[in-house]
Amino acid sequence: MVAEPSFKRYPRHAGVWKMLTASVCVALLACLHAQELRGHISVILLGATGDLARKYLWQGLFQLYLDEAGKGHSFRFHGAALTTTEQGQEVIAKVLESLSCPRDTAPARCAELKDQFQQLSEYRRLKTAEDYLALSKDIEAWVQREGLREAGRVFYFSVPPFAYADIARNINSSCRPGPGAWLRVALEKPFGHDHRSAQQLATELGSFFQEDEMYRVDHYLGKQVVAQILPFRDQNREALDGLWSRHHVDRVEIIMKETVDAGGRTSFYEEYGVIRDVLQNHLTEILTLVAMELPRNVSSSEAVLQHKLQAFRALRGLQKGSAVLGQYQAYSEQVRRELQKPDGFHSLTPTFAGVLVHIDNLRWEGVPFILMSGKALDERVSYVRILFKNQACCVQSEKHWVPDQSRCLPQQIVFYIGHGELGSPAVLVSRNLFRPSLPSASWQEVAGRPGLHLFGRPLSDYYAYSPVREQDAYSILISHIFHHRKDSFITTENLLASWVFWTPLLDSLAHEVPRLYPGGAENGRLLDFEFSGNSLAFSQQPLEQLVPGPGSGPTPSDFQVLRAKYRESPLISAWPEELIAKLADDIEATAVQAVRRFGKFHLALSGGSSPIALFQQLATGHYGFPWAHTHLWLADERCVPLWDPESNFQGLQAHLLQHVRVPYYNIHPMPVHLRQRLCAEEDRGAQVYAEEISALVANSSFDLVLLGMGTDGHTASLFPQSPTGLDGEQLVVLTKSPFRPYQRMSLSLPLINRARKVAVLVMGRMKREIAVLVSRVGHEPRKWPISGVLPDSGQLVWYMDYEAFLG
Amino acid sequence: MVAEPSFKRYPRHAGVWKMLTASVCVALLACLHAQELRGHISVILLGATGDLARKYLWQGLFQLYLDEAGKGHSFRFHGAALTTTEQGQEVIAKVLESLSCPRDTAPARCAELKDQFQQLSEYRRLKTAEDYLALSKDIEAWVQREGLREAGRVFYFSVPPFAYADIARNINSSCRPGPGAWLRVALEKPFGHDHRSAQQLATELGSFFQEDEMYRVDHYLGKQVVAQILPFRDQNREALDGLWSRHHVDRVEIIMKETVDAGGRTSFYEEYGVIRDVLQNHLTEILTLVAMELPRNVSSSEAVLQHKLQAFRALRGLQKGSAVLGQYQAYSEQVRRELQKPDGFHSLTPTFAGVLVHIDNLRWEGVPFILMSGKALDERVSYVRILFKNQACCVQSEKHWVPDQSRCLPQQIVFYIGHGELGSPAVLVSRNLFRPSLPSASWQEVAGRPGLHLFGRPLSDYYAYSPVREQDAYSILISHIFHHRKDSFITTENLLASWVFWTPLLDSLAHEVPRLYPGGAENGRLLDFEFSGNSLAFSQQPLEQLVPGPGSGPTPSDFQVLRAKYRESPLISAWPEELIAKLADDIEATAVQAVRRFGKFHLALSGGSSPIALFQQLATGHYGFPWAHTHLWLADERCVPLWDPESNFQGLQAHLLQHVRVPYYNIHPMPVHLRQRLCAEEDRGAQVYAEEISALVANSSFDLVLLGMGTDGHTASLFPQSPTGLDGEQLVVLTKSPFRPYQRMSLSLPLINRARKVAVLVMGRMKREIAVLVSRVGHEPRKWPISGVLPDSGQLVWYMDYEAFLG
Repeated sequence: MVAEPSFKRYPRHAGVWKMLTASVCVALLACLHAQELRGHISVILLGATGDLARKYLWQGLFQLYLDEAGKGHSFRFHGAALTTTEQGQEVIAKVLESLSCPRDTAPARCAELKDQFQQLSEYRRLKTAEDYLALSKDIEAWVQREGLREAGRVFYFSVPPFAYADIARNINSSCRPGPGAWLRVALEKPFGHDHRSAQQLATELGSFFQEDEMYRVDHYLGKQVVAQILPFRDQNREALDGLWSRHHVDRVEIIMKETVDAGGRTSFYEEYGVIRDVLQNHLTEILTLVAMELPRNVSSSEAVLQHKLQAFRALRGLQKGSAVLGQYQAYSEQVRRELQKPDGFHSLTPTFAGVLVHIDNLRWEGVPFILMSGKALDERVSYVRILFKNQACCVQSEKHWVPDQSRCLPQQIVFYIGHGELGSPAVLVSRNLFRPSLPSASWQEVAGRPGLHLFGRPLSDYYAYSPVREQDAYSILISHIFHHRKDSFITTENLLASWVFWTPLLDSLAHEVPRLYPGGAENGRLLDFEFSGNSLAFSQQPLEQLVPGPGSGPTPSDFQVLRAKYRESPLISAWPEELIAKLADDIEATAVQAVRRFGKFHLALSGGSSPIALFQQLATGHYGFPWAHTHLWLADERCVPLWDPESNFQGLQAHLLQHVRVPYYNIHPMPVHLRQRLCAEEDRGAQVYAEEISALVANSSFDLVLLGMGTDGHTASLFPQSPTGLDGEQLVVLTKSPFRPYQRMSLSLPLINRARKVAVLVMGRMKREIAVLVSRVGHEPRKWPISGVLPDSGQLVWYMDYEAFLG
Repeated sequence: MVAEPSFKRYPRHAGVWKMLTASVCVALLACLHAQELRGHISVILLGATGDLARKYLWQGLFQLYLDEAGKGHSFRFHGAALTTTEQGQEVIAKVLESLSCPRDTAPARCAELKDQFQQLSEYRRLKTAEDYLALSKDIEAWVQREGLREAGRVFYFSVPPFAYADIARNINSSCRPGPGAWLRVALEKPFGHDHRSAQQLATELGSFFQEDEMYRVDHYLGKQVVAQILPFRDQNREALDGLWSRHHVDRVEIIMKETVDAGGRTSFYEEYGVIRDVLQNHLTEILTLVAMELPRNVSSSEAVLQHKLQAFRALRGLQKGSAVLGQYQAYSEQVRRELQKPDGFHSLTPTFAGVLVHIDNLRWEGVPFILMSGKALDERVSYVRILFKNQACCVQSEKHWVPDQSRCLPQQIVFYIGHGELGSPAVLVSRNLFRPSLPSASWQEVAGRPGLHLFGRPLSDYYAYSPVREQDAYSILISHIFHHRKDSFITTENLLASWVFWTPLLDSLAHEVPRLYPGGAENGRLLDFEFSGNSLAFSQQPLEQLVPGPGSGPTPSDFQVLRAKYRESPLISAWPEELIAKLADDIEATAVQAVRRFGKFHLALSGGSSPIALFQQLATGHYGFPWAHTHLWLADERCVPLWDPESNFQGLQAHLLQHVRVPYYNIHPMPVHLRQRLCAEEDRGAQVYAEEISALVANSSFDLVLLGMGTDGHTASLFPQSPTGLDGEQLVVLTKSPFRPYQRMSLSLPLINRARKVAVLVMGRMKREIAVLVSRVGHEPRKWPISGVLPDSGQLVWYMDYEAFLG
């Protein structure tokens, strides 16, 4: 159905007029007045002769005209480019001729509509400030001549990003509409290459346009199914409320598979690669639509954008291990050919990526969001698939299960964006889940397709809806620009939040060699990957080294843990990973033994970076650790608030306490911040801690103290050339460090030496020199405090990695 | 292969002797000596003419004889019962005649073996102490006559539990073997009916036998596949180490389905029901074998039993909502018939149960263990199924997946205990998981069975192993008694731990009406159930009320939240569940707003029982709550250590802090335990807290204070007739309660009234009277401290449930 555009409407039948009551009359007059107020809109399409414009944008503008002109707006469409007027006019004329009308339009009517649109469209060259000024004058003259009010101007940038600044400057200086009329500029990606460049571009654009004037286009947000995600969540709140969380969602897959490769576009692709091309924008946008808290009012752009930003903030940082990368085998050859690279050139640009994203909020904690995209794969398909946990137990044997009832069969919601075996956009909801509500005017049930299986189940297992009328993403977005639907576009904050999220991963992967894959169905299981905790890995070990990667050293498991003596105490030496594993095992064994004997385990921990690996190991691998009976003490602390990133306690909290269940009152941070002051003598923090130790730790003898060793021979916060804490009665002391923050609190050497066991962890090449030195010196705590560590009746064990011990 | 039993061995060939070297000679002598030392064993089977004895136990004893007699032991088997000697001998003779030999024994050889066994077996009546004494004398006489050494005596109780005490007394007083020989008594379930009765029985038995002498039989522990669980875990440690935890296991199902019903056994069944009959023992034992930490040495009985107990300790307590119950429709009629009950009698005994178990340790937290058993179901089968999480992403479309490689197909390990479609015990491991290692002498690969599907996949998708020789559970257990393998039996600690776990659930379900089911395949989906969080429910709403259950009142959602005024402030009233939901919503909204405006949210919470429901609500349902920016304060505290169950903080920790992520330093318990002293004036705890508030809370004005109201009109810990804290400058005060513990710390009324918002939560009929009274009084804080709550410039809202408000 196409509304007939008409710029002015006059009552045709006086008889009808007479029948109208006074009130209707008033309403109608108000309406006519509103139409007049809607005024004239100029759309300037920059890059009007380019690929994107010819394929989608002109058609989108035509659709806008069909949809809106009938509602009392006046339009003119200015196709602009750098090319000469004649050439431009010629191209535009061809494009306009090829426009298509909606399916149900009669040919004659279609010709009429196209004609009207052509009348309102022109080509013009826009190159200099003068050109822009002239355009502005033209628009003003037209408005005046036609007796219209100017409502606003849309500039659609379909040009490469390097041209942005000039155009923006010209618009801002010479082509802004007058007061009372709005300006909207639509921008096409890429919006930068990383956080820095995106920030730069945003700042530049920000000097010409207000945030509210900019509409950054991610055409995925215009795809019908993607645009339906929030409305679907809104209209099915009741059913989804109980389902949309980590308690019920098993995983979310956000997938865009392509069969085409990058041939012919390598000059672009070499710069970007699959993560920048697809994941950072399209897939991330979809992720936020699925994951964000649903605003009460989903039609409030502001609320949607705010909630989206919150979702970005909850994303857990990505690490190198969060991604797997691939590259189809022909790619490097295509690059060599297209970009004239030498024969030996191998590109590192990924054409395939799988990324594991976690969201650290209570709704999604622990639910894997898998983003995956690649070129030269076995099929073309895009979808978001929410797979629910199987939380049912079916008592009857399987042969009795009924697909639309049994809760033991898979339960999923799929936003099928397009292509694939289904061949069209659709929303699928497993019948054993609930019957979804979709707007019946625009969505209809998909006809049965016997034999078609999707996501492990026949199509008949789903409630499946597809759009009554398929619409192109650009048409939808152009309409949204017109209707000021900012939530369909990428705000600057949103853009930068996305780059903040992606840039560290991109940086860390910059020199990674992607796994080569043959392309198409040939890929077999080569690209399958698996996740575990925070990380992702290919399922299959590589069968052959297809390109020479950087030589990999011997892996830790090639080596044995070395047992020896150091300063006459047992020394355990190994590669770092193994050393940490061994130390964690030993601590657990000590803990289990202590809890068995005494009912509790008192563990004093040092700060620094080496213990962090230990904390992580303890947090993830040690199921038998008696945390509920463990008391955690600090061996030393910096005089900063506990929430300061410099605080030793903060490291303990982030890497250990967050992940295990130690009762609150078994955690004993050092009182370096009593009365909101840092280590003030008069607050007697050291004495307070000493009293706490005396009260809770039998005989003030810790079951285990974990220490490190500084390159200057310090340990805990006992520093050379400073007598504090090296002897005497005090259990806890305030000390001075040669490094910032200078003030410290530390267990004293006599207290440390009362422990049943002391473990000293020394790691890294930096420690080599001091390790050699300390191996030779006697008991000289004033020069090297570490040399004073010798438990009175307990055991001392050194844990040194090979780099520290062997150099 | 059956070793030939021989009681004495003499060298038959002197020539061979001469060939032996001296050392072999010594070894052989040592060996003969050892054989002699092994000595004579008497097995006394009590209840030797009963069902169990005739079906399994005599056969088990015969097997023991076949296995062990050849190794130099001497045996005699005394079948005992209360029946006369002639009758008993007749029964026993028949039983002995019907014994079967292992499959590969030649008939003649079998007859010979049976004859030997019969020679060593006798029936005797055992009734009085004299009978036991006579038996003991007989054994001693036999041992002496044959020139043997007595090694030990096994008494196998195959008698009803009421007979235990007498028999035990007689054995202890009149039939213990002499010094140097052991006593072992094997006991058959039931071992009590609940924790109290089990404890009683255990105490009674404990007065006659040492713990080490008792072997409580759970015949499931003798089933070959069950007995293989720990060895399997041990032999496949490498593969399982990375899999056997919440990170990889999706769920564990422990299932025993029966087709038979309880007809003919209702006199027993009415007393027990399915939970006591199957879940409390068989399924729970299996659960611990799957869940327990694996000892380094699985053949150490002591270590296994210790680890098993630890697993029991980690079980999360069951609640009414942890189970679903069913009863097959014919059951009540059977009971009426068999037990002569009147026509109107309806039994509440469940014949079907599904129970959701959670294990609160780091290995299993969050993994559902589903225990299910029932009679009159559609098939007979028992298994333990460990289903792994799908943590793979397969890039190729499904049609390319290969069953033994694709990690996207289901991954499971099934201990198939017996029956079902497979028809025999087996261990199944999905081929896409790993190739398991099983002892090849006793386990063999199952032959292919095309068309057979198990757990959603064809049999060919599994590595499947079954025992080379199927053995009866009792034979295995009798052998384990003989070999002192205590870990195959239920120790007293183990038994009581299991009852501690099950008794509260049994109590809470005692009056629950089970869902009726027709039985067999007719059950349809009627018994399917689903879990969510901690609770379990049938998937289907009941279609009709099959028996008249207790009338159910209107549900909360039938009512609207009532808005009114109370003491001139807004009042919100509703049913308890709704009221808590509304309060939680309001707190979240306040929190979100505060964080938006100030970057943090200061919330002061009261103790008591009403807030606990609130804490649970906040912990589970409120995903948008800004916990990371929330500071939690206490409105009042009892002067007890923080870890005391009486502590308000303890409630907060258990019901809220455990489940959300509030940073350690945002948690502000009241300092009631400074220097390990409780609220000592000189420790100035109240001042310390006041200073902390002043330092962190802008203007000492909390964003929200949540209060309760006592039946005496107290609020926080401000009590009537005590002036402390009602006015003046002090922000935090020490007060006296009329109830234990008397000493309290509390925010003062002036401080409470500085809050931006105060919410008072009042719930329960007990509060009705005071609610009416307080509604009428003016500002009289000395009589009713709650009447002094009136924020200076903030908002006061009352949340009362209908019982408190309407009575």
